[in-house]
Amino acid sequence: MTAQAGKKQSMDANPLDRLADLLDGDMNAVNAEILRRMDSPVALIPQLASYLIAAGGKRIRPLMTLAATSIYGGDMKRAHGLATSVEFIHTATLLHDDVVDESVQRRGKDSANIVFGNQASVLVGDFLFSRAFQLMVDDGSLDVLKILSDASAIIAQGEVMQLSTTNNVATTMGEYLEVIRAKTAALFAAACEVGPVVAGAEGSAATAMAEYGLNLGIAFQITDDALDYSGTQGKIGKTPGDDFREGKMTAPVIIALMKADEDERKFWQRTLGEKDQQDSDFAQAQKILKTHDALSQSLALARDYGDKARLALAEAPDHPLRALLDELIPYTIERES
Amino acid sequence: MTAQAGKKQSMDANPLDRLADLLDGDMNAVNAEILRRMDSPVALIPQLASYLIAAGGKRIRPLMTLAATSIYGGDMKRAHGLATSVEFIHTATLLHDDVVDESVQRRGKDSANIVFGNQASVLVGDFLFSRAFQLMVDDGSLDVLKILSDASAIIAQGEVMQLSTTNNVATTMGEYLEVIRAKTAALFAAACEVGPVVAGAEGSAATAMAEYGLNLGIAFQITDDALDYSGTQGKIGKTPGDDFREGKMTAPVIIALMKADEDERKFWQRTLGEKDQQDSDFAQAQKILKTHDALSQSLALARDYGDKARLALAEAPDHPLRALLDELIPYTIERES
Repeated sequence: MTAQAGKKQSMDANPLDRLADLLDGDMNAVNAEILRRMDSPVALIPQLASYLIAAGGKRIRPLMTLAATSIYGGDMKRAHGLATSVEFIHTATLLHDDVVDESVQRRGKDSANIVFGNQASVLVGDFLFSRAFQLMVDDGSLDVLKILSDASAIIAQGEVMQLSTTNNVATTMGEYLEVIRAKTAALFAAACEVGPVVAGAEGSAATAMAEYGLNLGIAFQITDDALDYSGTQGKIGKTPGDDFREGKMTAPVIIALMKADEDERKFWQRTLGEKDQQDSDFAQAQKILKTHDALSQSLALARDYGDKARLALAEAPDHPLRALLDELIPYTIERES
Repeated sequence: MTAQAGKKQSMDANPLDRLADLLDGDMNAVNAEILRRMDSPVALIPQLASYLIAAGGKRIRPLMTLAATSIYGGDMKRAHGLATSVEFIHTATLLHDDVVDESVQRRGKDSANIVFGNQASVLVGDFLFSRAFQLMVDDGSLDVLKILSDASAIIAQGEVMQLSTTNNVATTMGEYLEVIRAKTAALFAAACEVGPVVAGAEGSAATAMAEYGLNLGIAFQITDDALDYSGTQGKIGKTPGDDFREGKMTAPVIIALMKADEDERKFWQRTLGEKDQQDSDFAQAQKILKTHDALSQSLALARDYGDKARLALAEAPDHPLRALLDELIPYTIERES
């Protein structure tokens, strides 16, 4: 998908497409590996997995593994397997997330839990997660296994943590940042860190790439959470207002709550805290966020993390892919979908 | 639990308790490791995990890892970590199973999905699964990682396969055996195989122990499925008739279906195929199974697999623990809970 889109692009295409274009051959190898490794004699597994994976997605995490490996001159054949592993861990968490959140849309289509049921989503998620570990074992590096098994445990912890902040209007910005650092940014960090590790890079290379991925991941999630209030359905590929309807405590709401008057506080408590919502409430929420400038302040926060990502990335050797990873930072934050 | 129960036992105690007694110190180390490794700053994780793990369970899988390692003279400190890993994989699958099956009871208590909700059960299952891999990475053996990551993928495949046999009265005995070999026996096999691998045993030792575990696991699951029709609630720790109510296709039903007359075939089609059940149907099902001797024929099938397990075990060196693993075979099949 991404590689194909890359082919028809000009110099002003977005950095994600240009990344995919520069890594065209490698992404084709990863896409082939994804198809090969999601296969199983149990027909429902490739059916469900390909439904979700074929629906596209940005493939941002495997691209980061490929780019980070290439920048440090690592073995790209190993990077193909590990990028596949990273994408499988991501896909497994999406499947479980959609069950947990009772989502109805993902990547602009009915989500897998709606089409195939919760049972299949949970179990195929487990399969992809196991398959991810089989890929790492095939790769044979205990260092890589440590990075990705640690990330997996942190992701699960973040998801559980999020359960206890949901519907809790007392959630602080610190708690929110802790949740997204774990549930989203940890896998971005691991996907990047794997690159220099595969390349056997010395010194602080692995830490610097992990730091880049971690901060980019935080910026990415804050932006995602802002888009849930500002995005339009066709573009973001899911229903805007999902977080609001579920009572998720995200950056825009936490910022608005810090400035809320008595009435607004009651509004958030009723809609998010007690999930007592009427049809007009989402529009009202958007209006309150606007009053307090909460979306632009969320994006300002995302830019702070973007700056940290940029600083960390500067440690990496000069390389056309490094330049694109750098451009990816503002693109991640200013995107509309 | 098990270790404590072991202390007050006499020579005629069951072989599982005697196994726990002989491996008392090791099981204490495993129980301590389980508690230590299920801990997390996210309070809900140890709460939910200890709710299920403290509820007991037979700890049969970690006992097998300990016994198999000890028989081959492997490092018992390594066995403690790996037995913990095996128990975490098992616990993660129980948590996800109960969500998928919408169970209400497990080990004689309300199941975790009922007490903590489906969301927490899915996510804490993911956490324990990740933690299992962290334990293996700490152990540092790629051979062990391969055995357990392969087993995990096979388990997930078996669970998905079971989804498509459920409510399908055309399911054959071969398909049923394929399902239980994957969803249950694969982890028994892996738990045993790890022992000689940790010990660095040569030749066919690992294959023989895996073969023992696999066949014992098949016998164990067939027995479990028979107990769902013959057991009493207090003893089996779950509600008898659960499989029937869910429309699961298990050995007793498949045997009864092979001998069914027209009316009986309609009965199974209505109750299991279409899940159209009345209160009196479970008693009727038990009656039909009795008519066709389906429970005793299921146990005869379990004994066939028990014989295969015995044959494989005979390859292991002479050892008091080997004798107990041998006694475990009839105990597994003749148990009432």
